[in-house]
Amino acid sequence: MPSISDKGRAMPPSPIRKLVPYSEEAKRKGRKVFHLNIGQPDIPTPEVALNAVRNLNIKILEYSHSAGNESYRRKLAGYYKSIGIDIDFSNILVTTGGSEAVLFTLMSCVNPGEEIITPEPFYANYNGFATAGGIKIVPVTSNIDDDFALPPISEIEKKISPKTKGILICNPNNPTGYLYSKEELLMLRDIVKKHDIYLFSDEVYREFCYDGALHFSAMNLEGIEQNVVMFDSVSKRYSECGVRIGAIVTRNREVTGTALKFAQARLSPPGLGQIVAEASLGTPPDYFREVNREYTARRNYMVEALNRIPGVYCPKPKGAFYTVVRLPVDDADRFAQWLLEEFEYNNHTVMIAPASGFYSTPGLGRNEARIAYVLNIEDLKGAMKVLEEALKVYPGRTGN
Amino acid sequence: MPSISDKGRAMPPSPIRKLVPYSEEAKRKGRKVFHLNIGQPDIPTPEVALNAVRNLNIKILEYSHSAGNESYRRKLAGYYKSIGIDIDFSNILVTTGGSEAVLFTLMSCVNPGEEIITPEPFYANYNGFATAGGIKIVPVTSNIDDDFALPPISEIEKKISPKTKGILICNPNNPTGYLYSKEELLMLRDIVKKHDIYLFSDEVYREFCYDGALHFSAMNLEGIEQNVVMFDSVSKRYSECGVRIGAIVTRNREVTGTALKFAQARLSPPGLGQIVAEASLGTPPDYFREVNREYTARRNYMVEALNRIPGVYCPKPKGAFYTVVRLPVDDADRFAQWLLEEFEYNNHTVMIAPASGFYSTPGLGRNEARIAYVLNIEDLKGAMKVLEEALKVYPGRTGN
Repeated sequence: MPSISDKGRAMPPSPIRKLVPYSEEAKRKGRKVFHLNIGQPDIPTPEVALNAVRNLNIKILEYSHSAGNESYRRKLAGYYKSIGIDIDFSNILVTTGGSEAVLFTLMSCVNPGEEIITPEPFYANYNGFATAGGIKIVPVTSNIDDDFALPPISEIEKKISPKTKGILICNPNNPTGYLYSKEELLMLRDIVKKHDIYLFSDEVYREFCYDGALHFSAMNLEGIEQNVVMFDSVSKRYSECGVRIGAIVTRNREVTGTALKFAQARLSPPGLGQIVAEASLGTPPDYFREVNREYTARRNYMVEALNRIPGVYCPKPKGAFYTVVRLPVDDADRFAQWLLEEFEYNNHTVMIAPASGFYSTPGLGRNEARIAYVLNIEDLKGAMKVLEEALKVYPGRTGN
Repeated sequence: MPSISDKGRAMPPSPIRKLVPYSEEAKRKGRKVFHLNIGQPDIPTPEVALNAVRNLNIKILEYSHSAGNESYRRKLAGYYKSIGIDIDFSNILVTTGGSEAVLFTLMSCVNPGEEIITPEPFYANYNGFATAGGIKIVPVTSNIDDDFALPPISEIEKKISPKTKGILICNPNNPTGYLYSKEELLMLRDIVKKHDIYLFSDEVYREFCYDGALHFSAMNLEGIEQNVVMFDSVSKRYSECGVRIGAIVTRNREVTGTALKFAQARLSPPGLGQIVAEASLGTPPDYFREVNREYTARRNYMVEALNRIPGVYCPKPKGAFYTVVRLPVDDADRFAQWLLEEFEYNNHTVMIAPASGFYSTPGLGRNEARIAYVLNIEDLKGAMKVLEEALKVYPGRTGN
């Protein structure tokens, strides 16, 4: 039997998925599992988006342009203009989800063996794309006691080597929910400019900012226009994760030109997804107000409930719909598995994502977990009660 | 400005796309361009497939399982059984088009620096995926005078080195339309078994076999069950190229397990596309009979028309909807560009795909072009007339 590749062996399995067999087992036992582990929102997709395919009026589901339908790209440029990002449709390459935006950009910009610096904890799938491209992720640790703010710029600068090709941020952040301030972005701008490296900015949670906080896009950093590549996606904005439509947005034409060659090799992004995404741009503003109100209420409830549990610390993040929480446990991986295998409260249990999978420095995040508030308040209440009761009896509970 | 990657620089631009600016210019001049260059069929998508999204009855377009919806995979396994390929649904990983099936498989099986052997001319995008993976494609030349049959096995064996990880075939073949016989596949089986390498078999044109010829799948080669990986796609079968749904099919669980890690990093294949693909499995048999009749008629007309033009030789392929034709020209790239820039007949011209882009041995295919018979007979007649008249006056016409 021929061997698989070293790269295949090195590919990290999804940290979110590794507990799935235990949750399936729990469900087989008849238990209800509250899923706090995944970023699949329960918010309905806008009707205007669903109706676009329901009213489908074409005879052949043809390939689209490799860069995406021009009509969609033009309207998308209009959307960016409406939120203060002034770009042309030709600065946009439509991708198969934000995932492909990351993959094509890294492949286009970073050689095997080169490095990108990113604050940890970070979105675990960056590891997968880096491994696919033979690229090294160099983490700089952000701290739960600072609510996961940008690490001091001096710490970032220490990590810069001749192999550094760029800095990657996710803003608002998955997994921490942290929203970078304009000041933090200006500090990043300076270091990016000084070393003439890329700034890759994953902004797929842009619409999810709370307490009136404003999102500042890396696309609006002056003086590094040729260095910034933004990743975007309609998945979270319109609760349509399944359509797999994302985008690479950059004023650097060498990057769009190179990424287009990768895009041509895979022919085109999904056609029906583009139809849905284009129609989604007509979502009424009410939709977003309602979604924002809902997530704000969930976050407020959840953060308060978590911090009321003895030994638990949860920052109050201003963005996305995740938080990384510190738990009074020996090992969050063990705790998460125990919740599914051993514990139930009124026949309910919860599934959380141990944070270790979001750190690349070994040993970090062992008493932390990512929690997504993608459940309605009633279910969140049930989930918080389960967590509270579980921490009373978990054998590996620690003193703090 | 930071530099782009060496890999990005090395990515080959699409050979099908490079003439697009000239065709757009021709259209701006008011000329009708017959597109013989692309594999976008004009056959309507089955109604049962389109209706599946028209009747969409869900509230949230959610992520699907990374390996694809289980309901689709189970029905797809049933389809394979119905055509004599006995596999379980767990042997199937649903991908974003056949393109991603190729990319994930190569990444999973072949290390950077290793080699795969493939008959040339070959589907040009294999180059892109190989470049993305740092993999070397070693061509073994098939010849138009043999109608592009499998090159002698001795020629293939000569190319095997310690770096050879597999053999890649496309059957029926894009770009040549050649359908490999069972005998040819048995010869490949022997060499694959002898060297214990992979056999990657791209079978996306399986349904397009003419004159009663039968398709023999590499999945049915006995004794190399763990070596064979099949690529599939619904794009051509149901004329739904835009939905981007393909599959990796293999009994080798190490390959499916490794490819699944790449699949998890990109979360899920397109959701609406999977709904369409699943519904497409219910396409009535009449549809395929009608499509086959149509393509047979087109091929018969076109091959005859081409061979009637002095100096032209066109094999009569038994599969897919392409043929590679020899033209009495100095350079098919120049001829193709001249057709768009300089020539018109009754205000019509044609766009063909120069074959040089399908060969990796420099200099080969210079007087050949790939022609796709994806136009209706009336348009094909027009296109053939244009070609005939063009070859009478093309300044670079050669004597043969």
